[in-house]
Amino acid sequence: MDQRTTMAGYQAAAERALDAWLPVATDAPQLLHEAMRYAVLGTGKRIRPVLVYATGQALGIPVTALDGPACAVEFVHAYSLVHDDLPAMDNDDLRRGRPTCHRAFDEGTAILAGDALQALAFHVLVTDAALNVPAMQRLAMIEALAAASGSQGMAGGQALDLNAVGAKLNAAELETMHLWKTGALIRASVKLGALCLPEIDAETLAALDSYAKCVGLAFQVQDDILDIEGQTEQIGKPQGSDLARNKPTYPGLLGLDGAKREAERLLADALSSLELLGARADFLRWLAHYIVKRDK
Amino acid sequence: MDQRTTMAGYQAAAERALDAWLPVATDAPQLLHEAMRYAVLGTGKRIRPVLVYATGQALGIPVTALDGPACAVEFVHAYSLVHDDLPAMDNDDLRRGRPTCHRAFDEGTAILAGDALQALAFHVLVTDAALNVPAMQRLAMIEALAAASGSQGMAGGQALDLNAVGAKLNAAELETMHLWKTGALIRASVKLGALCLPEIDAETLAALDSYAKCVGLAFQVQDDILDIEGQTEQIGKPQGSDLARNKPTYPGLLGLDGAKREAERLLADALSSLELLGARADFLRWLAHYIVKRDK
Repeated sequence: MDQRTTMAGYQAAAERALDAWLPVATDAPQLLHEAMRYAVLGTGKRIRPVLVYATGQALGIPVTALDGPACAVEFVHAYSLVHDDLPAMDNDDLRRGRPTCHRAFDEGTAILAGDALQALAFHVLVTDAALNVPAMQRLAMIEALAAASGSQGMAGGQALDLNAVGAKLNAAELETMHLWKTGALIRASVKLGALCLPEIDAETLAALDSYAKCVGLAFQVQDDILDIEGQTEQIGKPQGSDLARNKPTYPGLLGLDGAKREAERLLADALSSLELLGARADFLRWLAHYIVKRDK
Repeated sequence: MDQRTTMAGYQAAAERALDAWLPVATDAPQLLHEAMRYAVLGTGKRIRPVLVYATGQALGIPVTALDGPACAVEFVHAYSLVHDDLPAMDNDDLRRGRPTCHRAFDEGTAILAGDALQALAFHVLVTDAALNVPAMQRLAMIEALAAASGSQGMAGGQALDLNAVGAKLNAAELETMHLWKTGALIRASVKLGALCLPEIDAETLAALDSYAKCVGLAFQVQDDILDIEGQTEQIGKPQGSDLARNKPTYPGLLGLDGAKREAERLLADALSSLELLGARADFLRWLAHYIVKRDK
C-alpha cells in the first residue's frame, strides 16, 4: 500500500470516528449540535488525527484504538479555528472554502460550539472504551491535551498572534508564537498516539516529540509560504491575507527563499529524530515530507 | 464555629487556591494571564467551590484535598461568565460591579482567556498532587466536569438561553435550560466533592446529587427573583436586565409569588435529600438556605 493510500485511510477513519463522537444534530440543543458538526465534519486535511494514527501504528497499535485520541486532538483544533475566525480575532469569512462557523450560524453559537468541542475532547479521552491503557496513562493523555490547549499552548500562541499584528517579532519570538499556536497541538497529537502504547519508553517518546516539534514548526513555515505563493482556491482563504493584515511571518522575517530553507532544515531535523525507530516510522517520514511540500 | 464563619473560611481557601493555580501575570503571554486572573480573582461568591468544600467535609475529607476540585469548577464557571458577557451573547458591560473581561481587556483576549481557563480546569484535576484518590476516580471527576461543561451541560444551556430571547418557554423547557446552564456545574461541584472520598457509595452519591439538582434550580429561581427585586449595587448588574432583554424567567412564567413558592419547594426537596447523611450535612443544609434566601 502506498503512503497516499495509507493517508487516505487514516483520513477516512478520522472522518468516521469524528462523526460517531459528535452529538447527533437531532438531539437538543439542535442549533449548537449542528454548529459543532459543521465546524468539524466534511473538510480539513486531518493532519493532527493522521499524526495520531501514524504514530500509534508505528508502535503497533491498531487503528480502532487510536480513533478516540485522533478525535480529541481534532475537536480541539476545530474549536480553535472557530474561535480564531471570529470578528474579534482574525475576522475571517471563509475557512476551507466554506463560510466560517459564525457566518454559517451566528457569533454566539460559534463561541459556544467551540467551548463545547473543547469539553467533548476531554470527554472522549476519559470515556473511550477502545483505548486500552492504564488509567494513569489516560490521565497523561488528558494532561498532554490540556497543556497543549492552554495559556502556554494553543490559546497562548493565539494571544501572542493577536497582539503581534503590526508588531515586529524577532526569530525567537516568532518561533515561540508558533510553537504554542500550532506546534503544541501537533506535538500533543504525536504524544497521544505514543501514549496509546501502554509500555512506551522515554527514549522513543523523546524521539517522537523531537520529530513532532520540527514538523509543527515546518508546518507553520510552509503555511506562511503558501499564504504568499498559494492560490485562494487551493488554500481556501484569500492569498496574502496574513501580509495584508500585517502579521509577522517567516517569509517576512527571512525572505521567501530563507523561509524555504528553514522549512528544509526543519524537515531534515524531523527525519533525523526518527532514526531509532527504523522502518516502522516510514509513514511518519513520508508525512513530514507531505506537510512541508504540500501546496495547500 | 457558626456557619457564616465556615463559609468565609471556604471562600478564603478558594481564593488562595485559585490564586496559586492561576498562571502568574509576569509569565508570557502576560496580557492573557492578566485577563485570566482578572476573570477569576477578587470577586464572586464562590458558591461552586464552597459546594465542593462543603460536600467533601461532610464526608470527612480535609480542605487541602478539596482545593483542586474547588478550583476546577470555579475556572469553568469563570470562563463561562467571560464568554456569556461577550457582545455576541449577553453583551454585558458590568459583572460583579466591575467592567466585564472584554471591557477591561478586549474581546479577542477575553475569548482566549475563557478558552485557557477551561483547559486549566482539566489540568488541575489531572495534576493536583493533594487529591488522594485512585486514577480511575480522578477520571470520573474529569468526566463529571467535561459532561457538565459540554453541549448538554453549561454550553448547551447557554445556547438554549441565547435562542430563548423573545421566545415563550413552558415550565419544562425553562427547567431544562437551567438544569443545563447553571444546574449541571452545581451538580458537578457536589459530585467532585463527593468523589474526593475514595470509597464513596452509590446511595450517598445519589442523595448528594438530588440535593445538588434542587439547589441548582433554586439558585436560578432566586437569581430571576433578584433580577426583579434586587438593587443594582447589590447584584452587580442593572436591575431587571433579564426582563428588559425579554428573556424567559421563573417570575415571568409563574409570577413573582409563584417563583418564590417554587424556590421554597426546591429548598424543601434539597433538605429532604440529605436525610441519610445526618448531622454531618448541617453545613450543606445551611448552604441551601443561604442560596435560596440570598439578597444578591
